[in-house]
Amino acid sequence: MTPHDDDPDADADHLRDECGVFGISGHSEALQLTVLGLHALQHRGQEAAGIVTFDGQQFHSHRDQGMVHDIFQASSAATARMTGHMGIGHVRYSTAGDTVLRNVQPLFADFAFGGFALCHNGNLTNALTLRQQLVQRGCLFQSTTDTEVIIHLIAISLYTTVRQRIIDALRQVEGAYSMVAMTDEAMIGMRDPLGVRPLVLGWVDGCPVLTSETCALDMVGATYDRDIQPGEIVICDDAGVHSFFPFTSRPSRFCIFEHIYFARPDSFVEGRNVYGVRKRIGAQLARENPVDADVVVPVPDSGVPAALGFAEEAGLPFELGIIRSHYLGRTFIQPTDTIRNLGVRLKHNVNAGEIAGRRVVLVDDSIVRGTTSRKIVEMIRAAGATEVHMRISSPPTTHSCFYGIDTPERSQLMAARHDMDGIAQAIGVDSLAYTSWDGLYRAAGEDHRDPETPQFCDACFTGDYPTPLTDKDGGTQPIQLSMLEPRE
Amino acid sequence: MTPHDDDPDADADHLRDECGVFGISGHSEALQLTVLGLHALQHRGQEAAGIVTFDGQQFHSHRDQGMVHDIFQASSAATARMTGHMGIGHVRYSTAGDTVLRNVQPLFADFAFGGFALCHNGNLTNALTLRQQLVQRGCLFQSTTDTEVIIHLIAISLYTTVRQRIIDALRQVEGAYSMVAMTDEAMIGMRDPLGVRPLVLGWVDGCPVLTSETCALDMVGATYDRDIQPGEIVICDDAGVHSFFPFTSRPSRFCIFEHIYFARPDSFVEGRNVYGVRKRIGAQLARENPVDADVVVPVPDSGVPAALGFAEEAGLPFELGIIRSHYLGRTFIQPTDTIRNLGVRLKHNVNAGEIAGRRVVLVDDSIVRGTTSRKIVEMIRAAGATEVHMRISSPPTTHSCFYGIDTPERSQLMAARHDMDGIAQAIGVDSLAYTSWDGLYRAAGEDHRDPETPQFCDACFTGDYPTPLTDKDGGTQPIQLSMLEPRE
Amino acid sequence: MTPHDDDPDADADHLRDECGVFGISGHSEALQLTVLGLHALQHRGQEAAGIVTFDGQQFHSHRDQGMVHDIFQASSAATARMTGHMGIGHVRYSTAGDTVLRNVQPLFADFAFGGFALCHNGNLTNALTLRQQLVQRGCLFQSTTDTEVIIHLIAISLYTTVRQRIIDALRQVEGAYSMVAMTDEAMIGMRDPLGVRPLVLGWVDGCPVLTSETCALDMVGATYDRDIQPGEIVICDDAGVHSFFPFTSRPSRFCIFEHIYFARPDSFVEGRNVYGVRKRIGAQLARENPVDADVVVPVPDSGVPAALGFAEEAGLPFELGIIRSHYLGRTFIQPTDTIRNLGVRLKHNVNAGEIAGRRVVLVDDSIVRGTTSRKIVEMIRAAGATEVHMRISSPPTTHSCFYGIDTPERSQLMAARHDMDGIAQAIGVDSLAYTSWDGLYRAAGEDHRDPETPQFCDACFTGDYPTPLTDKDGGTQPIQLSMLEPRE
Amino acid sequence: MTPHDDDPDADADHLRDECGVFGISGHSEALQLTVLGLHALQHRGQEAAGIVTFDGQQFHSHRDQGMVHDIFQASSAATARMTGHMGIGHVRYSTAGDTVLRNVQPLFADFAFGGFALCHNGNLTNALTLRQQLVQRGCLFQSTTDTEVIIHLIAISLYTTVRQRIIDALRQVEGAYSMVAMTDEAMIGMRDPLGVRPLVLGWVDGCPVLTSETCALDMVGATYDRDIQPGEIVICDDAGVHSFFPFTSRPSRFCIFEHIYFARPDSFVEGRNVYGVRKRIGAQLARENPVDADVVVPVPDSGVPAALGFAEEAGLPFELGIIRSHYLGRTFIQPTDTIRNLGVRLKHNVNAGEIAGRRVVLVDDSIVRGTTSRKIVEMIRAAGATEVHMRISSPPTTHSCFYGIDTPERSQLMAARHDMDGIAQAIGVDSLAYTSWDGLYRAAGEDHRDPETPQFCDACFTGDYPTPLTDKDGGTQPIQLSMLEPRE
Repeated sequence: MTPHDDDPDADADHLRDECGVFGISGHSEALQLTVLGLHALQHRGQEAAGIVTFDGQQFHSHRDQGMVHDIFQASSAATARMTGHMGIGHVRYSTAGDTVLRNVQPLFADFAFGGFALCHNGNLTNALTLRQQLVQRGCLFQSTTDTEVIIHLIAISLYTTVRQRIIDALRQVEGAYSMVAMTDEAMIGMRDPLGVRPLVLGWVDGCPVLTSETCALDMVGATYDRDIQPGEIVICDDAGVHSFFPFTSRPSRFCIFEHIYFARPDSFVEGRNVYGVRKRIGAQLARENPVDADVVVPVPDSGVPAALGFAEEAGLPFELGIIRSHYLGRTFIQPTDTIRNLGVRLKHNVNAGEIAGRRVVLVDDSIVRGTTSRKIVEMIRAAGATEVHMRISSPPTTHSCFYGIDTPERSQLMAARHDMDGIAQAIGVDSLAYTSWDGLYRAAGEDHRDPETPQFCDACFTGDYPTPLTDKDGGTQPIQLSMLEPRE
Repeated sequence: MTPHDDDPDADADHLRDECGVFGISGHSEALQLTVLGLHALQHRGQEAAGIVTFDGQQFHSHRDQGMVHDIFQASSAATARMTGHMGIGHVRYSTAGDTVLRNVQPLFADFAFGGFALCHNGNLTNALTLRQQLVQRGCLFQSTTDTEVIIHLIAISLYTTVRQRIIDALRQVEGAYSMVAMTDEAMIGMRDPLGVRPLVLGWVDGCPVLTSETCALDMVGATYDRDIQPGEIVICDDAGVHSFFPFTSRPSRFCIFEHIYFARPDSFVEGRNVYGVRKRIGAQLARENPVDADVVVPVPDSGVPAALGFAEEAGLPFELGIIRSHYLGRTFIQPTDTIRNLGVRLKHNVNAGEIAGRRVVLVDDSIVRGTTSRKIVEMIRAAGATEVHMRISSPPTTHSCFYGIDTPERSQLMAARHDMDGIAQAIGVDSLAYTSWDGLYRAAGEDHRDPETPQFCDACFTGDYPTPLTDKDGGTQPIQLSMLEPRE
Repeated sequence: MTPHDDDPDADADHLRDECGVFGISGHSEALQLTVLGLHALQHRGQEAAGIVTFDGQQFHSHRDQGMVHDIFQASSAATARMTGHMGIGHVRYSTAGDTVLRNVQPLFADFAFGGFALCHNGNLTNALTLRQQLVQRGCLFQSTTDTEVIIHLIAISLYTTVRQRIIDALRQVEGAYSMVAMTDEAMIGMRDPLGVRPLVLGWVDGCPVLTSETCALDMVGATYDRDIQPGEIVICDDAGVHSFFPFTSRPSRFCIFEHIYFARPDSFVEGRNVYGVRKRIGAQLARENPVDADVVVPVPDSGVPAALGFAEEAGLPFELGIIRSHYLGRTFIQPTDTIRNLGVRLKHNVNAGEIAGRRVVLVDDSIVRGTTSRKIVEMIRAAGATEVHMRISSPPTTHSCFYGIDTPERSQLMAARHDMDGIAQAIGVDSLAYTSWDGLYRAAGEDHRDPETPQFCDACFTGDYPTPLTDKDGGTQPIQLSMLEPRE
Repeated sequence: MTPHDDDPDADADHLRDECGVFGISGHSEALQLTVLGLHALQHRGQEAAGIVTFDGQQFHSHRDQGMVHDIFQASSAATARMTGHMGIGHVRYSTAGDTVLRNVQPLFADFAFGGFALCHNGNLTNALTLRQQLVQRGCLFQSTTDTEVIIHLIAISLYTTVRQRIIDALRQVEGAYSMVAMTDEAMIGMRDPLGVRPLVLGWVDGCPVLTSETCALDMVGATYDRDIQPGEIVICDDAGVHSFFPFTSRPSRFCIFEHIYFARPDSFVEGRNVYGVRKRIGAQLARENPVDADVVVPVPDSGVPAALGFAEEAGLPFELGIIRSHYLGRTFIQPTDTIRNLGVRLKHNVNAGEIAGRRVVLVDDSIVRGTTSRKIVEMIRAAGATEVHMRISSPPTTHSCFYGIDTPERSQLMAARHDMDGIAQAIGVDSLAYTSWDGLYRAAGEDHRDPETPQFCDACFTGDYPTPLTDKDGGTQPIQLSMLEPRE
């Protein structure tokens, strides 16, 4: 019932989170718990994963493309040598071209002061600009990730302590980051001043755990302590957990799409239960946009909580009218015309007994390009639905994200290209409605959206970006992979 | 929302179907459609898969351990060479030790009359006895499967036509079989006289399709024609589809567990929609065993339809109080004590917001060993449930299956070892109830169970086996793999 | 300095032996010694290898394509499980299409009387004819090897003891075989009545060893006892080594090409040291075909011993004028025109300092198609040789072999298509001479070739085949692999 | 007949060259020719290989552990994408622990001025000292190779042109280097001021080729032009081949061991044919240390040319009394006691027919640890030799090499631990003699060794190192792999 599965294509019409992070310090089973923690965060990145451990003498690393359970097999030689009491790990989603091994985190560097490993969830908006300056200076980059600029900024900092060097580096970067790092003395958590991505602190067996979501705490049996605050740096060493706030304080802007889709429904983020927020959005949607119908059907799996909330509020029966296959891997079959006509059935099939002859309310969490929605609606109609009403548990997605979410170009976003009628026509429904901005904020616990200083980052709905977009606005080109290829 | 996923361990406490079959004849994309059909049947066997195609001149085969989408990658050399207009395929679940490659179907043999490929869903109850006789005669076996005895019986038959040889062979075997075979002239479907396992006929682009479930027809865009009848042999060749009934007619005994758990909820088996039957069982369960509670929570994913039926009938709210991870591969982490204490959270996590302070009705489809049930109940209680009431959408599972379902020894079946109170105590619930035999039959469309000639095979609940168990009763020992190992 | 290396292409213009066999019984390190023995026989087959061991209870097998040292890595799981005190093994060369895994020996079968493993060096000349009869009877073949007919003949024999069944089977086959087999009670050696292929008996630590060449005895520290005699069957069991002669006695016909090229120079076959025979052939060649020249240069590596004999006899200096690379794997580079013009330098390079301005005698062991010879001659001339005289240490190769040696069709044999002048012109030499039939026999220890009953099989030079060629003369077609492919 | 093969263990008692380089510019088949060139240099490094090509727009790279023909399969995807008209490549031998992928050359970096690829044969003697300084400055190293310091020195140079930056970098390093580099504009050859390692220039199809040995020129059909001079930098670009001599001129010190063992016998190095030099050393050895014996037997393959020279000079017969297997991979068999007693027969076997009853002169090129020599002598005696006299075609190896040759610690060098009698006793021979220093120089074309300014680097025999050993004398510790491991 999680909103993701091991098929990136199944979510081809969803925005995708790019990373999850996990770290634990002082535990004799640091590797095992980190593997489990990453497993619980698998929905935040299914393309690659990596862990670095430290055993008091040496750092050990294993990184690969694939799923956590494939990369960290209990019996593998790679995991056998990863001893240590401290470990940090990362799961990653990325667009295909960039997932070469050297881009897989944790990044690691041998500094003059010792080893340093780094895991990053989020995205820097001035990384390319900084990179150009660093290359001019003689720095040799090993990856195409934005994260590596932080490594070099730390390496060349004139400050002497690790903490000072890190702060020196972070003061130069812009954008979103929730990071876990590790030196030979400490585990370090860092969250950008706006707190765009989540980062929580928990405890297990007296050892601190830093991770993206509380579901990873549950997985390792850790108790939740608190969210790391926006702009906070925590250093977990032998003397305890030390907190620093080196940046000027600003109102936080947590990503509201974490509530809508990214986070696991059993997680609590920023103090709120995700499943509950989603049900409340569904109920709000029913209140805002009622419809005369026979049955509420979710687009599985991500539409299920909102559909339950909608059905309860609307007093309509809830049925699993669409069955989703959890087996599908990447497109594995040659796309001939015959296959293309099968369309969405590779991932979804209609449960015809619940659809024929009925007026159906379809509930989904968002429409990105609209391709999947159109196919599902066709399938529902082919199964005999007399009417199809689409209800979306978020506002229209009109802008790209620059803070760590993979979004298509604006020109490909359905809601950036069409008005409400146009979208309804494009996906072939009898009626269509989205949740309002204020309705969404209300379900998330606010009275309404504060237009001056919005309580969340909602740039994908509003275009209101909370940081400068230096690379984009300066026209800086992305790094071409080809030039780096030979290092692989 | 399908009742299975790619983690065999996730279903460690479920019975498991052993196979699914698919065949298509006369289609220019026979391979692609067979791959898709097997993909839709993946829930019937996740350990291995294979396909044989025929291109008018030569047979091509590819078989391997793993999931369909991994074995039949579009880009692989193995699939590239598999040309042909006719293809049959098989997915297989098996106990670990036996899944060596040579046991993966389709089995293939070069007979004097030409090539012959065979896929079998079910299990023969006199295979070992026959095998001993064949080995004495000088037949050399290549696998440890029961299915290979059929191959040898066909090979040594004194009849001249393929059809006669097949009938000659089938008259000598006992047990359950729904099979698809292929010669260089025809695709052949066969179903045992009791019709224990499903087999349906459909059509796509004017070509006949034979497969285990209608969801595979949906996947390839085929329309359902009819179920192959118990005891029927259909031969699909250039002249059309020919039907033969070579066995004495007997009342059918379709496996009722296909309705309860094995089949996909969107399939129609024996004319009935599986999801609908499951919801009706849930409603029947609510009527038979009402309970005063606050919320109905399914054990995902297989308990969901029955829980929806239960909640509707009982007028209680339905909540996804347990979140299931679809990412889990096989046990990938060393089971230290720390890990063991995490227990079932690798697969399931409680959605605590929906559980705390409530009286919970847990709905699951069956209890086999009881291990998973106990852990889930503990987890629900730890999340703050004030009461936990377990409702099972089948009668107590008390006997092993010998017809193609992997069941533990009777001595390990919870319901064979304990009475109702004992089970409730073992799994730690405040109350426990199962669906009655008659209630189950009613939900499946019958008035009640006919004790003289039951309308289904329900031996796992009743011990009423519809065929002789020749191997078991004769004390014939299973084939030891070790003696055959060298052929690998 | 062995006449073969790990590059089949390097010997593209040589005939190739198809197999070597090794077996040991009663030794606690049966696997290790068998691996070493096969390693010493690697020159007899570089495409695949396999071993079966027996531990008193179970047979264990591992077979794969590739070289012995790759297949039987000390650290591999496959070898770890191969316990036992008895083991037999096989190395195989085969034409590309046929080296599918199921053809790799030892073949293994579970008979009614127990397990049976078989390794075969040689080739049966009525295997296809027998196979057709066996298939008609209902026997299912698993490989395309000639050897499998022996397995089925044993399986269906009406005799009761293993020995009687084996003799019953062997009386029905024609052709060449030196075989080692294993049951759960004995290791068995078998040599065809003509003794075409070698098979020797040795002892190490009190345990009998049966193998193709004495160099394998040297490798495992075994002492040579005797050659198994033509038509002899030896059974090595707990009671000792028992010898049987079930066939009518006939004069032996050992393959003379084993002396010329196949056997390793340090082996003793049929009582004669191979290196010594080769040097004597070289000396005989110098006496029969003297030439006025400056330097004798071998075509490495197989021409070296004969060239040394030639140089000594002729009183000419011997120089390594051609350097051979031992690194070359299979053709690994795309054959563009540029590459093709490089020709033979991938394998050989001229050591120009020893060639320029000299009259060169090139010594090679045979000319098959002549392609390599032509390129080497060109290369020698390009390096500045003033004359090139080719001397071949065997008679002209004019006929195909049907006894276990891979030979091209007659139509491709240089000496079957051209007379002496034609060959000299085709390969571009100033003079060309071969060893005479009688000269060859003399070097091998006979007075001369007895035209009535030749002391060796020399059919590749004379066309005088010592057995019927039933399959060939009866026009029986080879088994088409495609029909069996699906079993793979 | 080359002095090396694919078994590093076969040369366990030899010094080992660490690298070979090859580059070509302006050729449409740059990749294919580079692959072939590296193949011809395989004897200079069998553990890893890599190539970088440039297609005018992008650099393409493929590097891996293993042999050239395995890494660059014609059909592989990796080679398919390696388009371009310019290519440089590297073969590498290294001690086990260091051959991680990131150490495999060519190294590549994205400088501010563009891409730069570098292949290095030799070893820097102040690399660790420089590395420490660079790390302090903030440079992040990606490998443990000495070569990477050159990359960073170029990156941080304040000069503006590539040529100036390279010269700036090379002026800071000490030791031995023959290097080929590539930018997007030019192929560059560099040789250290002493010219310790070889580097030659040739031409094919009008395109310049830079490589370690002339045998690589022969392989690609290139004609030899000249040796790159000590201290010379050549830049091959569109305008031709430009030569620079940025260093103070010094007398050259070419490595004399290239003549004795490292180079291929068919190569010409520094103008002399290697095979010819080796024969002359053998003759010199016979003159300096005659012996009354029956037969001269080389230790194959590297002892063969010297043994031929010895036999000719001594008037004794030359026989291949030891057969060497070219099949042996790395130690593939568990070293039980039984196996250990087999000793050297895994690699060598005595050709007993040539040894029994004779007084044998064994000729080998060097004795390093002495382990192999002792086993071979034992084996010769066991085969019945009445006397064994060892003659070595080099002076005693008494010192380690710091210029790119893998040598054991001095304490493990036989000749550093024992005097002549001690060595003879240790290896069990009746007499032992080495070539004298002056005799060696004479065979290499000099009158005698000039003790003031020796014409060669012969530090391994004399301890007379031609450069400072900054790292060694400064006590700088080698880089620990473990600290870098996580980048892998």
